[in-house]
Amino acid sequence: MTLQALVFDVFGTCVDWRGSIIRELTAYGQRSGQPADWEKLADEWRRDGYIGPIRRILSGQEPYVDSDELFRRKLKELLLRYGVGAASVDEVREVSLSWRKLDPWPDTVDGLRRLKQKFTIAPLSNGTFATLTSMARYGGLPWDCIISTDLQTTYKPHPDAYLLAPNLLDLQPDEVMLVAAHSNDLKGAQQVGLHTALVPRPQEWGANGTGDTPDPSFDYVATDFGDLARQLGC
Amino acid sequence: MTLQALVFDVFGTCVDWRGSIIRELTAYGQRSGQPADWEKLADEWRRDGYIGPIRRILSGQEPYVDSDELFRRKLKELLLRYGVGAASVDEVREVSLSWRKLDPWPDTVDGLRRLKQKFTIAPLSNGTFATLTSMARYGGLPWDCIISTDLQTTYKPHPDAYLLAPNLLDLQPDEVMLVAAHSNDLKGAQQVGLHTALVPRPQEWGANGTGDTPDPSFDYVATDFGDLARQLGC
Repeated sequence: MTLQALVFDVFGTCVDWRGSIIRELTAYGQRSGQPADWEKLADEWRRDGYIGPIRRILSGQEPYVDSDELFRRKLKELLLRYGVGAASVDEVREVSLSWRKLDPWPDTVDGLRRLKQKFTIAPLSNGTFATLTSMARYGGLPWDCIISTDLQTTYKPHPDAYLLAPNLLDLQPDEVMLVAAHSNDLKGAQQVGLHTALVPRPQEWGANGTGDTPDPSFDYVATDFGDLARQLGC
Repeated sequence: MTLQALVFDVFGTCVDWRGSIIRELTAYGQRSGQPADWEKLADEWRRDGYIGPIRRILSGQEPYVDSDELFRRKLKELLLRYGVGAASVDEVREVSLSWRKLDPWPDTVDGLRRLKQKFTIAPLSNGTFATLTSMARYGGLPWDCIISTDLQTTYKPHPDAYLLAPNLLDLQPDEVMLVAAHSNDLKGAQQVGLHTALVPRPQEWGANGTGDTPDPSFDYVATDFGDLARQLGC
């Protein structure tokens, strides 16, 4: 096989969702004159509004809805619980679209540009097609195409989610590599025959993180996208 | 409404499929030492291998297969009929991938770059997701995302094909405009509420063409993508 395409986890791997969401929430708090512990709300939004429900959807405990809807539902609940007061439907929708305004990590855009010279590059994310497209425009992520698991109405780490990439790109699974900051994501990709590259992002959950530990089965481990480009000869 | 996204017909509208396919077929003829009337074969490939079967699939006379498969099937038949001799499966596959190597019209890339400053831009084509992605890399088409009707296992001008664009982009139909060289395509888009822009391409079928005639119901008529960008204030 020859590697033809690199697909990327996005939240945490390509973009600093936490710093960006805290910034957007803080701005909303200032606009609306309502203070709250936005850092804590951001973490809870991600953990219990996205990671948790996705697990329950995949295990059949909850029906499928896309991740934009997951974010909206949880935000509505959190704003009330954090004492921000009742937000209008439009306000909730607008603030929940903060997930489209996430800053790339400093190495992301340049690294992707280098990798794109040699490989087809695309996100492979549980974010919706619309969110990933908007985010690419916001952050200048130079994707060749957008691959969202919502195209299959499923989520990673379901095997069908990973197979979307080779299927849509008319490639064999071993011609595709997933790049991610999260070991469990990479293990899911391995199960359907994709190659794997770990790029730990110690700061994903704030300053004191350590990042995921490399597994000997991963094909590549890189400190950032520039390092990955170098290792792949780009 | 405010226009948010422009989606584009591709074959004929963005790229010179005919000139490129004739070039690729001629090169194949030279490689394999087999002469044939490649211009005629190219036109027949497009007309009877793509336009015809799509019509029959949409009317329920034939089961759905994607357009890569349509191109492959027809090429196999045409090579035999044009006396080129039996091509191997790999050869047919390789030559049929000529549809991924189509040159943009001279105004396309620069026009898209200008339009992208203001609007989300994407193909909305009956080409497969893989073909459109490869073609974008080949020709430097700066799409924000790839929208292929194969994502819905349908074809334009079925209404579901046009609705893919607003649905995937999380927009209302009247926030999206289809740009195409073909009036029938634009009429299909109108039926589901998309805006329309005609960019006639008189040379699509060779030097003596005239291009489609504007209909008064189209929102814009432009001589090329640069003219469209100007009219849209880009």
